[in-house]
Amino acid sequence: MIVVRSTAELHEVLAEPRARGKSIGYVPTMGALHEGHLALVHEARKRDEVVLASIFVNPLQFAPNEDFDAYPRDEERDLALCEKAAADIAWLPTAAELFPPGFGLHVAIPHLSAVLCGADRPAHFAGVTTEMSKILIMLAPTAVYLGEKDFQQLVVLRALVRDLGLPVEVRAVPTVREPDGLALSSRNAYLGDTERPTAAALFRILSETATRLRAESGKVDEALAAGRRALTEAGIQRIDYFELIDPETLDPVRTGVPAARLVAAGWVGRTRLIDNITV
Amino acid sequence: MIVVRSTAELHEVLAEPRARGKSIGYVPTMGALHEGHLALVHEARKRDEVVLASIFVNPLQFAPNEDFDAYPRDEERDLALCEKAAADIAWLPTAAELFPPGFGLHVAIPHLSAVLCGADRPAHFAGVTTEMSKILIMLAPTAVYLGEKDFQQLVVLRALVRDLGLPVEVRAVPTVREPDGLALSSRNAYLGDTERPTAAALFRILSETATRLRAESGKVDEALAAGRRALTEAGIQRIDYFELIDPETLDPVRTGVPAARLVAAGWVGRTRLIDNITV
Repeated sequence: MIVVRSTAELHEVLAEPRARGKSIGYVPTMGALHEGHLALVHEARKRDEVVLASIFVNPLQFAPNEDFDAYPRDEERDLALCEKAAADIAWLPTAAELFPPGFGLHVAIPHLSAVLCGADRPAHFAGVTTEMSKILIMLAPTAVYLGEKDFQQLVVLRALVRDLGLPVEVRAVPTVREPDGLALSSRNAYLGDTERPTAAALFRILSETATRLRAESGKVDEALAAGRRALTEAGIQRIDYFELIDPETLDPVRTGVPAARLVAAGWVGRTRLIDNITV
Repeated sequence: MIVVRSTAELHEVLAEPRARGKSIGYVPTMGALHEGHLALVHEARKRDEVVLASIFVNPLQFAPNEDFDAYPRDEERDLALCEKAAADIAWLPTAAELFPPGFGLHVAIPHLSAVLCGADRPAHFAGVTTEMSKILIMLAPTAVYLGEKDFQQLVVLRALVRDLGLPVEVRAVPTVREPDGLALSSRNAYLGDTERPTAAALFRILSETATRLRAESGKVDEALAAGRRALTEAGIQRIDYFELIDPETLDPVRTGVPAARLVAAGWVGRTRLIDNITV
């Protein structure tokens, strides 16, 4: 595995695959890698000739009061995991090069970015789309691999790629879970021992609610209300959202939309968790 | 000259030049062509192997109260002028194809777009940058040709290209003027016969003020105040701005910045005119 940092090195290692027309699979990460990220690398490995993973904690997607400084970083471990997962290239860009002095670009998909996670983190998705526009134009990969855990991010990035007309395929990879159902997340590291069992309730209640919605598709409000009560009883007392949504527009749905998504965000202590399930 | 409308036709006519690695010079216009636009085509003709001009009144850059519907359109005349100026391809995109249903992208350079013309037209430059992002990614031209008359637009588009990392060279072409100095503009067609001499005062006073600033670079406030008074006396009673600015940041300057730009926007009757001059 080749490790590159500068844009110049990156273009150098990509020159040969590009000249030969090889397919390039791109896996964007913020490091603190877990099996969820590695599932993206494995999928890229299966489908593309060259696998490029990036490790970069994007400052644009954190608000000043958020956990940018505290976000877990362990470069050595992350690189070892990328290599073990058979990535060809690990790219560790610098903020100084991606966002040099005077950088003032703002790229957003406003109508998909102000709801759900965007309601509580108004600048978050613009930070993601601004960074990803620049990176996808720079890399021109064949495909970009994204996890379904960050469902809204997936929908926003699909819209970005479509609206900018970038020749990149967005490939979604299913969420990887702990044995008790908890979705893998770098932020799980924040959970204390006593909080860990509470965190598992999020997916359990999503699953139970999805089952109920499939059985009684006319009673969406009742199922959502019961799910919210169950979350509170399980110890997730602050719920940012627990909603059934259209998987393209993110609008709430009250009747059976094909592949409607049940999405949730809630707090276990000081840790915010998100998860989702198809209905 | 080949006239294309759909994206499919466009890519078809560009396939051969692209395969041969020919340089492509792109001239974006909103039609209502005059010698200012044709100067862009001539410059592209000199410097690039293939010259592509687009004619498209971009709805995103007009606010609901602005002149989108009234904006002059004369396709037949515009195509004849493109052909005469030796463009190779005229592209007339449709809004339906550039901005299909569900299109929700927003691309902006906020810090350069809220001042000067952006102060009075807050959504204008985001409309330009959103459209141009999509078009420049789609076309991937060697160079894009822009007139200096729309100076802020030039600065904003330079920043867009730099921040997105698009491999396009932005080439500025000097403003073309009537014999009395009035900058050519499609909106000059709105001027009545009695307004026409008043309009010429804009560039005359810009030139006089620039001369004074060059001679007395320490007295910027005095020169600007005198210029504003002269505009009012000449009949341009509503002045949106008359400022000396840094040509990259657009910030007002009060001392001699190299190539500082004196920029103006004012109204003659119901017609808004802009112009600028280097100091």
